[in-house]
Amino acid sequence: MTSTLAPRTRHHWVITLVCVDQPGIVHAVSGAIVRASGNITESQQFTSADTGRFFMRLQVECPAPREELEAELAPVVERYAMESVIDVVGRPVRTLVLASTAGNCVNDLLFRQRGGQLPIEVPLVLSNHGTLRDLVGFYGVPFESLPITDAASKAAFEARVVEAIEEEDIELVVLARYMQILSPELCEVLEGRAINIHHSFLPGFKGASPYKQAHARGVKLIGATAHFVTGDLDEGPIIEQNVVRVDHSRTPAELVSIGQDEESRTLTQAVTWFAEHRVLQDGARTIIFR
Amino acid sequence: MTSTLAPRTRHHWVITLVCVDQPGIVHAVSGAIVRASGNITESQQFTSADTGRFFMRLQVECPAPREELEAELAPVVERYAMESVIDVVGRPVRTLVLASTAGNCVNDLLFRQRGGQLPIEVPLVLSNHGTLRDLVGFYGVPFESLPITDAASKAAFEARVVEAIEEEDIELVVLARYMQILSPELCEVLEGRAINIHHSFLPGFKGASPYKQAHARGVKLIGATAHFVTGDLDEGPIIEQNVVRVDHSRTPAELVSIGQDEESRTLTQAVTWFAEHRVLQDGARTIIFR
Amino acid sequence: MTSTLAPRTRHHWVITLVCVDQPGIVHAVSGAIVRASGNITESQQFTSADTGRFFMRLQVECPAPREELEAELAPVVERYAMESVIDVVGRPVRTLVLASTAGNCVNDLLFRQRGGQLPIEVPLVLSNHGTLRDLVGFYGVPFESLPITDAASKAAFEARVVEAIEEEDIELVVLARYMQILSPELCEVLEGRAINIHHSFLPGFKGASPYKQAHARGVKLIGATAHFVTGDLDEGPIIEQNVVRVDHSRTPAELVSIGQDEESRTLTQAVTWFAEHRVLQDGARTIIFR
Amino acid sequence: MTSTLAPRTRHHWVITLVCVDQPGIVHAVSGAIVRASGNITESQQFTSADTGRFFMRLQVECPAPREELEAELAPVVERYAMESVIDVVGRPVRTLVLASTAGNCVNDLLFRQRGGQLPIEVPLVLSNHGTLRDLVGFYGVPFESLPITDAASKAAFEARVVEAIEEEDIELVVLARYMQILSPELCEVLEGRAINIHHSFLPGFKGASPYKQAHARGVKLIGATAHFVTGDLDEGPIIEQNVVRVDHSRTPAELVSIGQDEESRTLTQAVTWFAEHRVLQDGARTIIFR
Repeated sequence: MTSTLAPRTRHHWVITLVCVDQPGIVHAVSGAIVRASGNITESQQFTSADTGRFFMRLQVECPAPREELEAELAPVVERYAMESVIDVVGRPVRTLVLASTAGNCVNDLLFRQRGGQLPIEVPLVLSNHGTLRDLVGFYGVPFESLPITDAASKAAFEARVVEAIEEEDIELVVLARYMQILSPELCEVLEGRAINIHHSFLPGFKGASPYKQAHARGVKLIGATAHFVTGDLDEGPIIEQNVVRVDHSRTPAELVSIGQDEESRTLTQAVTWFAEHRVLQDGARTIIFR
Repeated sequence: MTSTLAPRTRHHWVITLVCVDQPGIVHAVSGAIVRASGNITESQQFTSADTGRFFMRLQVECPAPREELEAELAPVVERYAMESVIDVVGRPVRTLVLASTAGNCVNDLLFRQRGGQLPIEVPLVLSNHGTLRDLVGFYGVPFESLPITDAASKAAFEARVVEAIEEEDIELVVLARYMQILSPELCEVLEGRAINIHHSFLPGFKGASPYKQAHARGVKLIGATAHFVTGDLDEGPIIEQNVVRVDHSRTPAELVSIGQDEESRTLTQAVTWFAEHRVLQDGARTIIFR
Repeated sequence: MTSTLAPRTRHHWVITLVCVDQPGIVHAVSGAIVRASGNITESQQFTSADTGRFFMRLQVECPAPREELEAELAPVVERYAMESVIDVVGRPVRTLVLASTAGNCVNDLLFRQRGGQLPIEVPLVLSNHGTLRDLVGFYGVPFESLPITDAASKAAFEARVVEAIEEEDIELVVLARYMQILSPELCEVLEGRAINIHHSFLPGFKGASPYKQAHARGVKLIGATAHFVTGDLDEGPIIEQNVVRVDHSRTPAELVSIGQDEESRTLTQAVTWFAEHRVLQDGARTIIFR
Repeated sequence: MTSTLAPRTRHHWVITLVCVDQPGIVHAVSGAIVRASGNITESQQFTSADTGRFFMRLQVECPAPREELEAELAPVVERYAMESVIDVVGRPVRTLVLASTAGNCVNDLLFRQRGGQLPIEVPLVLSNHGTLRDLVGFYGVPFESLPITDAASKAAFEARVVEAIEEEDIELVVLARYMQILSPELCEVLEGRAINIHHSFLPGFKGASPYKQAHARGVKLIGATAHFVTGDLDEGPIIEQNVVRVDHSRTPAELVSIGQDEESRTLTQAVTWFAEHRVLQDGARTIIFR
């Protein structure tokens, strides 16, 4: 316990903890927080019946400095072999945005980021086209375009992604309608820290021109799914989904436009939850502590 | 034009017309209705860019008897080679319900039918189990169960379906969680007049235990699709779809329960629209004049 | 700590705790559960910034008998001056249903109760009309009707409500489209344990014939609100709300029918959460631990 | 009938017609279109049971020039005393945007306008603050700010509105979170051609700080309503409404942020329908031909 006569700022921490479930975890964690004079302002937990793992997310107000809170938690983390994260509530997550030509998702992300509703900072938008240069520039965000025309230029693009991640201390990569398939190597590098968005239909459609297929089947709902990038294309753990109602009078082009709106709001929601440490992975599933 | 001194009852007709699109159709149809002294109270039309077909649904109040209205429309129907239907608004459609053991869809259909919200009459519920006898009996609806244990008993069940359709002048067959796969022969007999309900997910899941698969992927939306029965299992033209939001805490059993609610309300909606002549087929799509 | 060689059944408990917020509560509660050898399977908590109160709901699997768990929790409950409830997960809550003539809400409640989806038991449906006698009887539930025609018969009806609550150990009273205004005295008796349902519109409409008013203003959404009964008519703490989209073509009668569907599903949801101890009151608000 | 050897461009017209309902209207209208060699590609109609008025919206492809189509329709318009509009499908509607400091609605409108999804052109954004100058400038739209501090500066602002309407041939005024109450005189000038957006709750809350009141009551849904401006503040005919689900954990500030999202998408939808001539007024109601 530190002792000081100087007034101490109260910090607001977010803590996530994941381990094998067993009795006593909550008691051990809450004891550490009591010892650090912390007050729990938000707490959610879940035990997965599938994997037997225990997930916890806490927000804690605490007069103690970070080291002290970490020191109190360390024995608990060790005893239960926890994966643990401690972060400052609201700290902007350093985010690299990949895009192609469509501006809807990029605009939604940057507008909300600037408005203070989305706790990310974007040191770079990287695109295989120049289309979005002005839009991105308006928000004061650096923009680079590297055309992809063949295997070599694609490898160069992906090398730039990896380089930017290192140079800019990137914590999250957002594929905001980036229309290239990532190489398996890059998928592996990004696992657990890259979010993709794609359209979704009931029922699903495989292959090219899904909106045309959806139109041809006369679907009544179209939607979007935001998911983690994995090597298995479009099959990563789902973070968020939305749908909207359509009817027979919609042309394929209108379905695309309606779908884009769902894509941007679904992606922005997923990124918000990720940046707030509300998304935890449990095998092929996500736990979302909304 | 008939002439009579007796006061004439006003009839309320629903008319559906389908033909190859060309200029002048609306003018020709509305002329026939004017000549029958009819007043259009509801009118919807749609031209399919996919098939070039024109679809129209009208509700017409008319002092003339049916023959007169038909006589006025006949030359128009002939000139444009229309498929046409004329029916009384609100006439209950004779409906055969097939079921197995789950009662949710059957209860919803019969409760609303009895409450006057669903314009069908149900002369028979036919099931391969006896489970729903009391429920169906409560609504005063005849119930038969014919167990299906092998190919022969399945053929007998389907023969009874065909027989009941004829005996009871059935216009619509509703598969209300009837858990057997229909034979191709029966699918063909029922084409265009049988509605099935099944669960739906984003993304779709093939194979057994779809709710378990949906749970394993951590889907955030589950839903239901009502569609016409065709030979292509679960791939007939879609009539209605709904989804509901779920989260990671739901067990597979809870997903099933939530999904059942969506199934019953989606099926009831589809049956209502069919009974009101609001569902027209355009190839693999449906036109829904809500 | 009990000691016994006999195998002990594992119990599944739901616990709710409410007190003034202060550091250390979670640690104290979890300590008691650890001492009773309990395992927390579900846990939610919330601190109200409005009232400074702390709310917690736990589900705990525990080999110990109820007395032991209570004995471990008692000092914590006392120290923090907690309101506490300990109950068996899934125990049916004894529920009195009040109705008038509309059957939609009653049917939905009883159908789900019978199907095992709604943990209530209904020893009596009490109505000021006889209309629903057959429907209620079908579910094997006792039904009484007591006509209300004047102040005296209304007082008699309410006296029967109070009597039934005592005779039948009623824990929850559900106003399932019971169309009489409760007396202030009965409201007081029922406070915190009676749920009402009423239609809701954007914007709200005061006075008679709200659906006609909603139609006249051309509202695009109609809905329903389930709330606790208080002396302030239709102004009790809100438990659940739903809306559905409508358009200009709907007649007032159709709006009523659509609104009734929202009413029944909203009421059933609110009753389910109440029966699962998921609804806690915080002044004029509810905390819903979904 | 014109005769010319030169190839004729096909035009795409939108036509709206409103009159007292009577038999034969559709026949008369469709006859005029047949005579102008037009082909109806979209058609919707509705008869109001409240006012006895008939509403029709058509889209017509036509080789004839505007004068010819108008000449054919003129006798029909006269015979039935119709209010009629003929416009080119997709023609951008000249729109004046009024704003204060909040950028969400303005950004959504201008982003979609630029993306070609919203058929308006905006010659001016007029605000009582300078906050949005950069945002509006990014989209290449002229921006003026005129501070409002007293009755005289408010009158000057409104005089500038009236002047801009004339100078710029304004057809639609959008109040995109313009936080001043319009004078009755300006309301009258704008009647039928100005759209406002405001938050909406179930139930409604009167007076100041509605989000605080909604929080205090623990509402589960918050939303937005787009409506025509009339002299009766916030009580004009409703064009569109949306809601979104919230729970007890949301602070008043979060409710405001969530509500703003609903406001921008609801306003953009209402403006889109207006610009496409899909919004017709029927007394205090709107007919929306979606």
